[in-house]
Amino acid sequence: MVSFESDYIAGAHPEILKRLMETNLEPMPGYGNDGYCESAKEKIKKAIGREDVEIEFLAGGTQTNAVIISTMLADYEGVVAAATGHISAHEAGAIEYTGHEVLEIPQHNGKIDALDLVKFLEKFYGDDSHDHMTFPGMVYISHPTEYGTLYTKNELQQISEVCKKYRMPLFMDGARLGYGLMSQATDVTMADIAELCDVFYIGGTKVGALCGEAVVFTKGNKPKNFLTSVKRRGALLAKGRLLGVQFDALFTDNLYFEIGKYGIHMAERVKEMVTRYGLEFFMESPTNQQFVVVTGEQLKKIQKKVRVSVWEQLDDSRWVIRLATSWSTTEADLKALEEALS
Amino acid sequence: MVSFESDYIAGAHPEILKRLMETNLEPMPGYGNDGYCESAKEKIKKAIGREDVEIEFLAGGTQTNAVIISTMLADYEGVVAAATGHISAHEAGAIEYTGHEVLEIPQHNGKIDALDLVKFLEKFYGDDSHDHMTFPGMVYISHPTEYGTLYTKNELQQISEVCKKYRMPLFMDGARLGYGLMSQATDVTMADIAELCDVFYIGGTKVGALCGEAVVFTKGNKPKNFLTSVKRRGALLAKGRLLGVQFDALFTDNLYFEIGKYGIHMAERVKEMVTRYGLEFFMESPTNQQFVVVTGEQLKKIQKKVRVSVWEQLDDSRWVIRLATSWSTTEADLKALEEALS
Amino acid sequence: MVSFESDYIAGAHPEILKRLMETNLEPMPGYGNDGYCESAKEKIKKAIGREDVEIEFLAGGTQTNAVIISTMLADYEGVVAAATGHISAHEAGAIEYTGHEVLEIPQHNGKIDALDLVKFLEKFYGDDSHDHMTFPGMVYISHPTEYGTLYTKNELQQISEVCKKYRMPLFMDGARLGYGLMSQATDVTMADIAELCDVFYIGGTKVGALCGEAVVFTKGNKPKNFLTSVKRRGALLAKGRLLGVQFDALFTDNLYFEIGKYGIHMAERVKEMVTRYGLEFFMESPTNQQFVVVTGEQLKKIQKKVRVSVWEQLDDSRWVIRLATSWSTTEADLKALEEALS
Amino acid sequence: MVSFESDYIAGAHPEILKRLMETNLEPMPGYGNDGYCESAKEKIKKAIGREDVEIEFLAGGTQTNAVIISTMLADYEGVVAAATGHISAHEAGAIEYTGHEVLEIPQHNGKIDALDLVKFLEKFYGDDSHDHMTFPGMVYISHPTEYGTLYTKNELQQISEVCKKYRMPLFMDGARLGYGLMSQATDVTMADIAELCDVFYIGGTKVGALCGEAVVFTKGNKPKNFLTSVKRRGALLAKGRLLGVQFDALFTDNLYFEIGKYGIHMAERVKEMVTRYGLEFFMESPTNQQFVVVTGEQLKKIQKKVRVSVWEQLDDSRWVIRLATSWSTTEADLKALEEALS
Repeated sequence: MVSFESDYIAGAHPEILKRLMETNLEPMPGYGNDGYCESAKEKIKKAIGREDVEIEFLAGGTQTNAVIISTMLADYEGVVAAATGHISAHEAGAIEYTGHEVLEIPQHNGKIDALDLVKFLEKFYGDDSHDHMTFPGMVYISHPTEYGTLYTKNELQQISEVCKKYRMPLFMDGARLGYGLMSQATDVTMADIAELCDVFYIGGTKVGALCGEAVVFTKGNKPKNFLTSVKRRGALLAKGRLLGVQFDALFTDNLYFEIGKYGIHMAERVKEMVTRYGLEFFMESPTNQQFVVVTGEQLKKIQKKVRVSVWEQLDDSRWVIRLATSWSTTEADLKALEEALS
Repeated sequence: MVSFESDYIAGAHPEILKRLMETNLEPMPGYGNDGYCESAKEKIKKAIGREDVEIEFLAGGTQTNAVIISTMLADYEGVVAAATGHISAHEAGAIEYTGHEVLEIPQHNGKIDALDLVKFLEKFYGDDSHDHMTFPGMVYISHPTEYGTLYTKNELQQISEVCKKYRMPLFMDGARLGYGLMSQATDVTMADIAELCDVFYIGGTKVGALCGEAVVFTKGNKPKNFLTSVKRRGALLAKGRLLGVQFDALFTDNLYFEIGKYGIHMAERVKEMVTRYGLEFFMESPTNQQFVVVTGEQLKKIQKKVRVSVWEQLDDSRWVIRLATSWSTTEADLKALEEALS
Repeated sequence: MVSFESDYIAGAHPEILKRLMETNLEPMPGYGNDGYCESAKEKIKKAIGREDVEIEFLAGGTQTNAVIISTMLADYEGVVAAATGHISAHEAGAIEYTGHEVLEIPQHNGKIDALDLVKFLEKFYGDDSHDHMTFPGMVYISHPTEYGTLYTKNELQQISEVCKKYRMPLFMDGARLGYGLMSQATDVTMADIAELCDVFYIGGTKVGALCGEAVVFTKGNKPKNFLTSVKRRGALLAKGRLLGVQFDALFTDNLYFEIGKYGIHMAERVKEMVTRYGLEFFMESPTNQQFVVVTGEQLKKIQKKVRVSVWEQLDDSRWVIRLATSWSTTEADLKALEEALS
Repeated sequence: MVSFESDYIAGAHPEILKRLMETNLEPMPGYGNDGYCESAKEKIKKAIGREDVEIEFLAGGTQTNAVIISTMLADYEGVVAAATGHISAHEAGAIEYTGHEVLEIPQHNGKIDALDLVKFLEKFYGDDSHDHMTFPGMVYISHPTEYGTLYTKNELQQISEVCKKYRMPLFMDGARLGYGLMSQATDVTMADIAELCDVFYIGGTKVGALCGEAVVFTKGNKPKNFLTSVKRRGALLAKGRLLGVQFDALFTDNLYFEIGKYGIHMAERVKEMVTRYGLEFFMESPTNQQFVVVTGEQLKKIQKKVRVSVWEQLDDSRWVIRLATSWSTTEADLKALEEALS
């Protein structure tokens, strides 16, 4: 059945599979020491416009969040995040598993706000007994957020300034970065992100790869002996080439951005369709995830034609569903959705 | 350059890549809930000859070791392993990262011995203050071992009996199981392993897959809410299909065993060649890893033609090198090796 | 200077010190295997009116919370607590250090409510992807709470029923239990607590001891090999007698309850005084901690005469202070406080 | 019954109890911020002869080892120790609980050797794939060792030099330091230790205190926000005065050293007695623990009169027992032992 359940319902973008095929028999050293990892890093540096960043590849989002946060926090520190942040709610305690607390602050459309952050920090440091509490040691944001929303450049600048003042790295979870960068509603570039964040990752899994996220350290701040820390967290792939070849393909001929653009284009058409059929959005999203309010009856009808994610129950009679698009969304998918909605 | 460095120098067996290609556009649910994971599990059950085992897929060896050990041990328990066991020496502390100790016992050609195990357990429980020490809660063996050696069925039975008596699960790391099963020198079948071990895994990464290990719980003992425990260790792939499709292919038309057989065949030819050129084996290995003693001069000469793993320095003038074969070893590779040795 | 800062400003109740003196030279085995630990356990069982409970001694509150929670939760579980619960806010991440998440639910005067708990649990289990989230595996309450408030028997029964239904142990942090039990406003007895909670602790540190908390497992549910788990958390005292002798003294001739009663009596006098001088309470507390609202000027004046805890800033001009009484509060202390307030 | 089982069979040295009594009613702030902690630190600094060391108090030995090691190691590091080191064998996995591996090297009479250490480090760094293994990040020694033996100044200097060269802190577990310092066979002073070790602790529990160890950081290397890290490990006592008053007493009028001297004196008499009755020592020990070889028959006879620790079974017919002396050993104890041996 046609599915809008997520942006990871299909395999890899065909161009990526093709490259895996073409390079398959080349003998290469393991653990990311192959030429494709090297080449992918160079291409990503070009895409960012910075030679001095450090790049590492990991396999998935939860893993990347846990590895980055636990290797960059000091023992006595936790990570500040929106109450709706992925690490707060949907990682099954992966951050706590590493021994660190997630310090929640309010969310506004999935985003945190520099003022709330300042307020939180001032309260913390103003408390005489704050050394009996977890120190805020990093700020986590996702862009796009879990609700598909995006930070403006100005918002990022403000958060970044607070982080600098309090000497906390700013970490951006870019699991869906490709869709964020290609949104028509954004003024944030990859170069902006590299400037304003201390570490971020360029999501592959949800943007065309079979698996893989590219972590970018922007301030010469890659944790020492990072490979060893990755390995002891069970996150080091023997065939690192699997990530190298994929990211090399994603950053050849703008593929990563083309995928983002296409996903956004399909999302815009979904939005138009949803609006046309009189459904309400739970939240305005400029990216590839659309959150739509439906009644139970509408939900049943839709589910007869297409698969969707039931996000949460809004009230006794209404639900929020998520419709996600990606590189793999087809005209036929849209047509099925139209039938489902009509 | 031709490489005998490891059994993970190439990508995936072509048949696997083909299946990834063919299934690429099918929409599937994530996290291992797809039909290929289901089908792969059924095929593995058939290969084992047991309907009642439970199977789960993980991405890599270190990860699998850490997940299995830490979800099956009680808080106060550690895992018993050979001093040369992968988890003792080469996992960068991945087991300790989960909070558990590796309790080392002596090794004999990379294997542990039931008698040593009993001795260790009797000493532990005979000590009046053993509750001030880590309880032995599981036994870890690798088959083939880190030195390519294999347990006999009789040896496994003896170890298994000790484990039963002390109510400890026996865990077999089968990262290279395919080569072990197809060795001409083995009397151990997959059915034997399922009978004698409480949990084991069928290695994919080193036996033709891009990544992936299939964990088999043989006694209705899969840890409760396993998916959640996997996720919080950062080990849950969003596109579980990547593992499902690969293992489905590996267990279609005996591919897994064919790969093992081919790797063994090539290893036998390497052995013959090594013997023919008068080199000494560090240890007699009936599987796809051959450990050969060379002088510094010989090493340099070999390295001019082929890449090998330098395993350890034996004395002032001699080294142990590893030559590994796999599904990807070619006639041309063997020819280059012959040139290197001659 | 006279201090109302906390209930642990003095050493031990004189009767306890006397017993430490009297027993000082008796040779005893370590680690809690001495006769005083045994005798103290028997006396506590009598005080509870239950022969079948299991009792263990630990040194301090944070330690006890971390040990209990981490030994009773399964890997994939977290502990549900009020947002103001000690483990949520003031333990410096001690629960997270053990790898487990604190799942916060709303607080009402420092207490959780059975309805909120049900709502939280229904939402959790109603979510299709709840296996991607931390499972609620235990409920933590403090009695008295961090704000000095108390659960009624009826409230405890309701919470206990929810816990039973969802098969989660109910854990009561009784760091100040002595004051709770002797409050004039309570209808909850130690027997009630033993019936309704699966595990609780009888606080010593804040109720007359130098250190020490007595953990009571009420359902035959003491974690297996508990001593080993305690030891590996660095929580096992070599001279266990230090805890044994103290709790033996506390549960001889009703000392524990006398201390509670006296502390409550002094708190009532503080309350009367605060009311008489026209100050407002932040929250109505029937136990030994009184939370009072003061202006900056009032605060300065008070701090000239007595030491108090500044709890939090209420608004631009007002603060909440805590005045705590205990067995060590003297008439002279009250007099100094009266001078400070007048 | 008379006991030579350990050096923690009695309560506190009477002088310590007296000071706890005298200071009992003084109101003091918690968590180590009291005047006695301050004063104790000053006195310890004087005893060491260094103003620039940093001192912190913890409650027990296992706890101290776990806190120091886990706050001073980097994520990817483990601690090097003798196979017989307390942290290797008898801490129930307390170091592994913090996520770190204990890297064992050979022991000689309970001690490590600088040459073995160098050999281990050279092998580690000489291995091309050492980033797949746990990095050695600290060296742990105990002085006296678990077998009562002592390092010479020269041995310490050699180990210290290796540590400096490899930039690893040298950590001395001084659980029984008082007896080590006052041994007639030592040339090592507290000043030497402060110079040669990066961190060490002065054991209280086994040298006259109810509980407590004084950690000394000698190179301005106290981990940042140490109190918070201590708290989150459940190791922060609310009534820090309990440790402050005790160490203040121990370092007033040379009490700590007098206790050590007395314990050594009694041990010398035990040694003389053991020799006189023709028993053999398992190992020559110049401190307060004596390890003696006995037959089963001898053991039974001894156990009729005095309690001893049965350390290990040597062979089918012989056992090693430990006889420990301390400040609490009396003439009557010696007399009972003489009867037991005769």
